[in-house]
Amino acid sequence: MRTLNVALGERSYPIHIGPSLLERADLILPHLKTRRVAIVTNDVVGPLYLARLQQALQSQGVDVASVVLPDGEANKDWPTLNLIFDALLGGRCERSTTLIALGGGVVGDMGGFAAACYQRGMPFIQIPTTLLAQVDSSVGGKTAINHPLGKNMIGAFYQPKLVLADTGVLDTLPPRELAAGVAEVIKYGLIRDLPFLEWLEANLDALLVRDPEALAFAIERSCANKAEVVVADETEQGERALLNLGHTFGHAIETGMGYGQWLHGEAVAAGTMMAAELSRRLGWLTDADVVRAETLFLRAGLPVHGPVLGVERYLELMSHDKKVEAGRLRLVLLRELGRALMWGEASEGDISAAIEARCR
Amino acid sequence: MRTLNVALGERSYPIHIGPSLLERADLILPHLKTRRVAIVTNDVVGPLYLARLQQALQSQGVDVASVVLPDGEANKDWPTLNLIFDALLGGRCERSTTLIALGGGVVGDMGGFAAACYQRGMPFIQIPTTLLAQVDSSVGGKTAINHPLGKNMIGAFYQPKLVLADTGVLDTLPPRELAAGVAEVIKYGLIRDLPFLEWLEANLDALLVRDPEALAFAIERSCANKAEVVVADETEQGERALLNLGHTFGHAIETGMGYGQWLHGEAVAAGTMMAAELSRRLGWLTDADVVRAETLFLRAGLPVHGPVLGVERYLELMSHDKKVEAGRLRLVLLRELGRALMWGEASEGDISAAIEARCR
Repeated sequence: MRTLNVALGERSYPIHIGPSLLERADLILPHLKTRRVAIVTNDVVGPLYLARLQQALQSQGVDVASVVLPDGEANKDWPTLNLIFDALLGGRCERSTTLIALGGGVVGDMGGFAAACYQRGMPFIQIPTTLLAQVDSSVGGKTAINHPLGKNMIGAFYQPKLVLADTGVLDTLPPRELAAGVAEVIKYGLIRDLPFLEWLEANLDALLVRDPEALAFAIERSCANKAEVVVADETEQGERALLNLGHTFGHAIETGMGYGQWLHGEAVAAGTMMAAELSRRLGWLTDADVVRAETLFLRAGLPVHGPVLGVERYLELMSHDKKVEAGRLRLVLLRELGRALMWGEASEGDISAAIEARCR
Repeated sequence: MRTLNVALGERSYPIHIGPSLLERADLILPHLKTRRVAIVTNDVVGPLYLARLQQALQSQGVDVASVVLPDGEANKDWPTLNLIFDALLGGRCERSTTLIALGGGVVGDMGGFAAACYQRGMPFIQIPTTLLAQVDSSVGGKTAINHPLGKNMIGAFYQPKLVLADTGVLDTLPPRELAAGVAEVIKYGLIRDLPFLEWLEANLDALLVRDPEALAFAIERSCANKAEVVVADETEQGERALLNLGHTFGHAIETGMGYGQWLHGEAVAAGTMMAAELSRRLGWLTDADVVRAETLFLRAGLPVHGPVLGVERYLELMSHDKKVEAGRLRLVLLRELGRALMWGEASEGDISAAIEARCR
């Protein structure tokens, strides 16, 4: 088992990474305020893993309630969030009860936001069951639901007490979702860790066949990269925004296609290629750099072009982005491979051309 | 103008108290991140004061959006909260835009919660327009909406950047609402400030005829009392719960009668008398003490008995209270006049008898 500490002062917490952590109630117990937990999961992950977690906790005398949500980004909305509140109130959960989110990014986002809001805040533990959630939402405390006019528009910064990243549960992850997680892993290499990007070029196949050692290394390295950024900038005033490489374009794809059509990681891959294309136009990346990024995504089976929505529609959707400041669109771009920067000076012409070039 | 500083480190903020503060855009400007604000108000306060605030800000070059909610505690729910999100997103408000809540406690609670959640947090300014909101929600950062199974169950701790308590706007406050505010003012005397309780016994009539000096003194003293408690215990782990004298009983009254039937302050007055009655049964208050409290509430025109819901129903409703810990009901009681304490040892028999004695 590897352990990484996310150092946020009073809100610091450990991430444990390794096989069969789901049964390790001994890792969870020290973080409970009382012997009561409420597990939030969904109807895909629940049937696979809920009973194992539940039994592990119950065998240690923990009282366990659970709520099973419908799966999917399309359900990351208020009515589904309210199912959690209904279950917490119906089960008389107290603000000392710990909420455990067992599932992918959507379950983590909704479970975390519910924990942030229930009685103005209850303790929260994350057990991410997708690679994407393990390398992304494990670190940073971002929680949210979607609004019809924008993704993740309603949420909170709320840190978990503990994260368990069980590499074993990735065995049941559909290949498409594994690839979506790899997109975010590649992103860490692109924005701030060239040696990791090189490691990925050498070891991508091991990741794709779910080699446990390769997975654990990639998860730890990704979380470590993210943790360094988040510790420096917990509420996303500056550097943290660099983690959103490809996300402004990607969110436009997700919203434009309707939530749930494209996986988040897929949209990020295509969005990152738009950002790379724009960086090339600004003279920061060479053609060869762009090909290196593209090759990694293609090897992972990820899209490197966005859907044809029309450039105007992309710009319209991107204008809702949280990084808009004083009406000006600020984008995360690549100054070189392994170094991202925030840029507010790109012309609409260049942005449009980059989108155009990367739609198919 | 009186100014009180709520000392919460990085989250410290001033409360200005006095007449005609609504026009004082100069007090607001230094707290804006950008020259954009979104004003949240309701359909009772809006027609009276929105234009004045809006003009004051616009004359200083501030871009002002606004959203007018339906009035009343019955609307402190998700659909109404969502009207704020719709307006913020529709108006392309950014996370650097400042949300100003102009209204009573419900507008403050909803505006504050919307600000806490919109894009995971935008700056927030409160301009409370009821006495209750000026002496209660001005300090403490509690924001929330109701859930069908319990009041204030979904919310956040979120501090404003600034509070303007304009005593002039109280001139248009209906007498019943003024009285409801006086209930909370009396509460501060009862829980921790005997000299203030004595001042109220001498000056209650001046408050009720809205003498500006008396109002300003009572608001400042109330906020100062609350600030002392909140500074010591921002997220309500301990002492802060003492501010909830009468609230566990009171919330049962509000929920049991349906939100909006009883004003919050009315329910607190009756609930406080239940707590006083229970304190008397425990031998902490004398009959004369109980009469002193009752007399003040009666002079203010407040109820000193709860509605007849049946004791079982009261207990059922109270069991949802946020102060329940490990299944045990903890109540704020009076050890003596001017000194409250948290007590988890009251027998169900005594609690039932106190409710019974104070229902009519």
